[in-house]
Amino acid sequence: MTNAFTSSGLFGGLFCDPSVAAQFGSAAMLRHMLAFEAAWTGALRDCGGVPAADAAQALAVIAGFIPPDLGADSDRDGLPVPALVAALRAGQPAPVTRAIHSGATSQDVLDTAMVLACLAVLDDLAGRLTGVIGRIENLNTRCGANPLMARTRMQAALPATVSLRVDAWRRALAGHQDRLGPLRQDMAQVQVGGAIGLRDAQGDAMAAHVAQALGLQTGPVWHSDRSRFVALGHWLVLVAGTLGKIGQDVALMAQQGIDDIILQGGGGSSAMAHKHNPISAEVMVTLARYTAGQQGILAQAMVHEQERSGAAWALEWLTLPAMAEATAAALRHADRLLASVDRLGGPL
Amino acid sequence: MTNAFTSSGLFGGLFCDPSVAAQFGSAAMLRHMLAFEAAWTGALRDCGGVPAADAAQALAVIAGFIPPDLGADSDRDGLPVPALVAALRAGQPAPVTRAIHSGATSQDVLDTAMVLACLAVLDDLAGRLTGVIGRIENLNTRCGANPLMARTRMQAALPATVSLRVDAWRRALAGHQDRLGPLRQDMAQVQVGGAIGLRDAQGDAMAAHVAQALGLQTGPVWHSDRSRFVALGHWLVLVAGTLGKIGQDVALMAQQGIDDIILQGGGGSSAMAHKHNPISAEVMVTLARYTAGQQGILAQAMVHEQERSGAAWALEWLTLPAMAEATAAALRHADRLLASVDRLGGPL
Amino acid sequence: MTNAFTSSGLFGGLFCDPSVAAQFGSAAMLRHMLAFEAAWTGALRDCGGVPAADAAQALAVIAGFIPPDLGADSDRDGLPVPALVAALRAGQPAPVTRAIHSGATSQDVLDTAMVLACLAVLDDLAGRLTGVIGRIENLNTRCGANPLMARTRMQAALPATVSLRVDAWRRALAGHQDRLGPLRQDMAQVQVGGAIGLRDAQGDAMAAHVAQALGLQTGPVWHSDRSRFVALGHWLVLVAGTLGKIGQDVALMAQQGIDDIILQGGGGSSAMAHKHNPISAEVMVTLARYTAGQQGILAQAMVHEQERSGAAWALEWLTLPAMAEATAAALRHADRLLASVDRLGGPL
Amino acid sequence: MTNAFTSSGLFGGLFCDPSVAAQFGSAAMLRHMLAFEAAWTGALRDCGGVPAADAAQALAVIAGFIPPDLGADSDRDGLPVPALVAALRAGQPAPVTRAIHSGATSQDVLDTAMVLACLAVLDDLAGRLTGVIGRIENLNTRCGANPLMARTRMQAALPATVSLRVDAWRRALAGHQDRLGPLRQDMAQVQVGGAIGLRDAQGDAMAAHVAQALGLQTGPVWHSDRSRFVALGHWLVLVAGTLGKIGQDVALMAQQGIDDIILQGGGGSSAMAHKHNPISAEVMVTLARYTAGQQGILAQAMVHEQERSGAAWALEWLTLPAMAEATAAALRHADRLLASVDRLGGPL
Repeated sequence: MTNAFTSSGLFGGLFCDPSVAAQFGSAAMLRHMLAFEAAWTGALRDCGGVPAADAAQALAVIAGFIPPDLGADSDRDGLPVPALVAALRAGQPAPVTRAIHSGATSQDVLDTAMVLACLAVLDDLAGRLTGVIGRIENLNTRCGANPLMARTRMQAALPATVSLRVDAWRRALAGHQDRLGPLRQDMAQVQVGGAIGLRDAQGDAMAAHVAQALGLQTGPVWHSDRSRFVALGHWLVLVAGTLGKIGQDVALMAQQGIDDIILQGGGGSSAMAHKHNPISAEVMVTLARYTAGQQGILAQAMVHEQERSGAAWALEWLTLPAMAEATAAALRHADRLLASVDRLGGPL
Repeated sequence: MTNAFTSSGLFGGLFCDPSVAAQFGSAAMLRHMLAFEAAWTGALRDCGGVPAADAAQALAVIAGFIPPDLGADSDRDGLPVPALVAALRAGQPAPVTRAIHSGATSQDVLDTAMVLACLAVLDDLAGRLTGVIGRIENLNTRCGANPLMARTRMQAALPATVSLRVDAWRRALAGHQDRLGPLRQDMAQVQVGGAIGLRDAQGDAMAAHVAQALGLQTGPVWHSDRSRFVALGHWLVLVAGTLGKIGQDVALMAQQGIDDIILQGGGGSSAMAHKHNPISAEVMVTLARYTAGQQGILAQAMVHEQERSGAAWALEWLTLPAMAEATAAALRHADRLLASVDRLGGPL
Repeated sequence: MTNAFTSSGLFGGLFCDPSVAAQFGSAAMLRHMLAFEAAWTGALRDCGGVPAADAAQALAVIAGFIPPDLGADSDRDGLPVPALVAALRAGQPAPVTRAIHSGATSQDVLDTAMVLACLAVLDDLAGRLTGVIGRIENLNTRCGANPLMARTRMQAALPATVSLRVDAWRRALAGHQDRLGPLRQDMAQVQVGGAIGLRDAQGDAMAAHVAQALGLQTGPVWHSDRSRFVALGHWLVLVAGTLGKIGQDVALMAQQGIDDIILQGGGGSSAMAHKHNPISAEVMVTLARYTAGQQGILAQAMVHEQERSGAAWALEWLTLPAMAEATAAALRHADRLLASVDRLGGPL
Repeated sequence: MTNAFTSSGLFGGLFCDPSVAAQFGSAAMLRHMLAFEAAWTGALRDCGGVPAADAAQALAVIAGFIPPDLGADSDRDGLPVPALVAALRAGQPAPVTRAIHSGATSQDVLDTAMVLACLAVLDDLAGRLTGVIGRIENLNTRCGANPLMARTRMQAALPATVSLRVDAWRRALAGHQDRLGPLRQDMAQVQVGGAIGLRDAQGDAMAAHVAQALGLQTGPVWHSDRSRFVALGHWLVLVAGTLGKIGQDVALMAQQGIDDIILQGGGGSSAMAHKHNPISAEVMVTLARYTAGQQGILAQAMVHEQERSGAAWALEWLTLPAMAEATAAALRHADRLLASVDRLGGPL
């Protein structure tokens, strides 16, 4: 869902991430949808019996297409694809219209576009994750030998060093890095099922062709099996969750009386000029809890009735992009927070 | 959180509501925040020992204030109030700066502004709820006597009439109307606690003054007791939930083979020209499940440590405005859906 | 759902509450179900045209009834009522069978029994809530004047006293006490709708009769409007949430370096003999998060299709009793925790 | 949490699974905990400098140990391990007590025991999953060629055959089978970290020894990284979710007017003798929504502060065993439901 409050300019970049937002924005999504349509027209030409000349003209239309505002039609149709296809075909001779989208369905276009967007997001997040891990390694190098009281169940346990705590952060994030490869592999599947998710031998050939054109893999239709997107949500939960753990640890270390960390900067207060609040640490906790909770809603989308559920499908749209943006924002906060550490650990 | 996908133009108004969004947008929120500051300056004049002339100048500053972009400062401070106060005071002589915000804290401003925004949203939703109930009554008048098979546990139960089903819709929504009064009463509380949520007799007088100026009530400080916003979320869950029930009923009645309802319009398909999908009914189900799930996250904000929790507080901002907008969108879908009913019930 | 781990003897009473559990156990629920059946038979006699002699014999059957194991039949029917009714009628002459349950439906019995159980649970929780508030008042009397550093956003804010913090606890809990009356009033509604939730004038009379016999109120049928149970869940969230806040505050105060609280006892460690872990404080946080999250699932039950949804209804059973028991356990932990405070606040 | 209502005998086996419950019950968990202690004593002997005779006597104690009731001590300690260790050591000479648990911590014991329980549960679920897939294949063989109207967005789409729908079920479940191997591999990790999660070279050797004795793998300490249990929850969500989809499909096919499926048996009604309710189908939907929602709570456990969080850890215990049992129950319902299909599809 839209959140007019956190996306108002009032909060700056605290709860958003322009880079990930761009991947789910209309320009990027339309680019992916048109990439699907172009690949589909190519497949129709190569395995669907559409004459090469018609396909060539269709491809020219797609390449030069400037999408109109699709919002009003989405209000009626529930998604932008029918109007997009109608606009692509508008004014073209019948053979050319037959070279556009024929045999595909809205879900093929939108699911594949979403896969492409998610892969781009994963690449973005992977880079940031590497950066955050680097920050932690740097911190360990600088401060790892400093004394730090180990704490279990919120109680002082035994004297230890900073390495104990920050290397646990690193290990958890490195584990999420290791999970990225299989996740990416599982996600990178074209969606080709046509009106009702049925594929004959020609459909398989078309699917393989489209997948290759888009750099994806091909497998069976997955119209009503939403495991891929739920698995992506799960990975976001893990990453945001570990960052939330780091944020909570920093907030606890920054308490006066504990004084295990000194941060540069920090948030000001309208009432107490002496305060330097660990804003990024707090926001990382917030984003972890937010993302964790969204997974319980995204996962409801698994109950996807019959050959296509409009209600369950839309639940993915309301949750997954927000989870990705929250995780991205958390990674950015982590980068900033870790870069601002002046001292970690110290004389016990 | 922001959701760049559903707020992209691609989905039109399916998952958003401009009217409620405006209530949480920066213009409205700044208006409420400045209203608080003006009321506060008035209170400082009347019970805080600030000279009338200083207060008058401060009020003139507040009245003529054009807020700068507060985003960058929010990134540092975690919220826009410190920068807002600094901008209000900028360039003013010391006595005037003392007539602005002195003794208040960011949470006083933001919580009170959020209360004012929520009350405006409740008024908006209340009007729509009345409209939807009217649509149901009209439907009952037109079609209530038509035969309809009652169904329990998804199975045909006994022959009945349309009234049985739609009057159950109406009763549930009317119950939510009845709950509005007490909710509004509970919500309409000023927040005045100062730096750490402590009020002396003068603070009580200030609070009463601010409350009166803003049309609110006054009671004890509630900095760390978030029950009010969780209660608002609960009411949104009830309303969106009943609308989800209506949406699910309509989607079930619209099945070929059941044919209990005929809707005008309906969503088109990119693959099957004969289809008329009950988009609004589906979206109502989606929004109900979304809103219900968010409540499980908003409610985590009750664990609000010490005198003010940045992490728990922000969780409210990430969820509640989106829940309100989802409920508003669901009411709009309900209005459209019910207005589009051509026939309900019929020969069994 | 069942949780074999936390209900194994391994955890003692940490995550359960025998008193609330008893209210949802089979003995109490059967007692409530039979109370409904007896009231129903009385209503059939007084307004349903059933001869007094038949009703008297039916009442004797109900009064002397020893329920058989209903589990196997529940497996088939989805709930125990059909088998219960069949067992009540077994071996009776036809006129007596007609004086039992005729015109009622399983949902009438089970919803009403659940209301009776919930009211008993509310009484139980209300008593404990009063007790916990008393403990806080006592603490405030004993230690309220002790110095305590106020903390906002996990940072030292301004010196204050213990009263500031513990009176915020009290105020929040007192607010939940105030909400109990209206909640109880809303909950105490008989469910009488018959097979499909339809009531004629005789049905209204029957409902009024049953309500009076059971000490409930009567209103329209609410088979498919689950607001009442969701509202109860909401109240449990508030209570458990405030207790979670208290637990978090105590855990933070108990940190070495902060040392704002001294607790008697505390949990031992298998590895560190010197540790005294604030177990109850931690468990209160856990139970708050658990209960909050369950509300997001319970609320999905609002999407209750048609005249009765088996799937949505059962979701209430899986969540609400566990939420009530979690809240009861949290109240017990709070009582124990607050009773164990040796010192709160101290020299800053 | 405990749920006294659904675990009362009143509901038979609808919402529970004795086989999975047994894996999390006290007998099995104690067996796993004692297996850890025995392996640990063996490791102390082989790499910890404990004399072989002392270790032999310790192993004899462990082998012959009959655990006392640990509940009362758990109430104090927050978990049963400290009391278990004390009971093991009770009455033994000091050298033997040193051969028991020395250098290990409660979390090592409980996490490893939980891993062993989860692996046993996975084996159990894997077997049932294979069974359910076999039922679907059988159904496809018997009825796959029968006509069935494909439905998208709850609307009739195009005529198809039963294979279209049931093979989508099979594919989704087969995907979950494929995910089992990597999940099992990731789960099968011993937990050895000692008091604060620190391991030296000797600790590594001990960990390797314990892992081998228990049939597990060894890697770094994961005290504060809860990804493994969240990943198990995710897999349960996928399986329960697909079963919920199947349940919803069956409930929709069983509607009078649609009549796409004929089921043997079915649940009776206390008010309508003619009804045959598709109870298992409904319960599968309920369990899917329940399990999905729990994941949003389990995932909150990722925010695991410092070296060990009592509050976050216990949140896993309250959710994960219930999710596993819900998924097991859903698999059993699926087996029963699919076995009861008399006819699927038919003359359109």
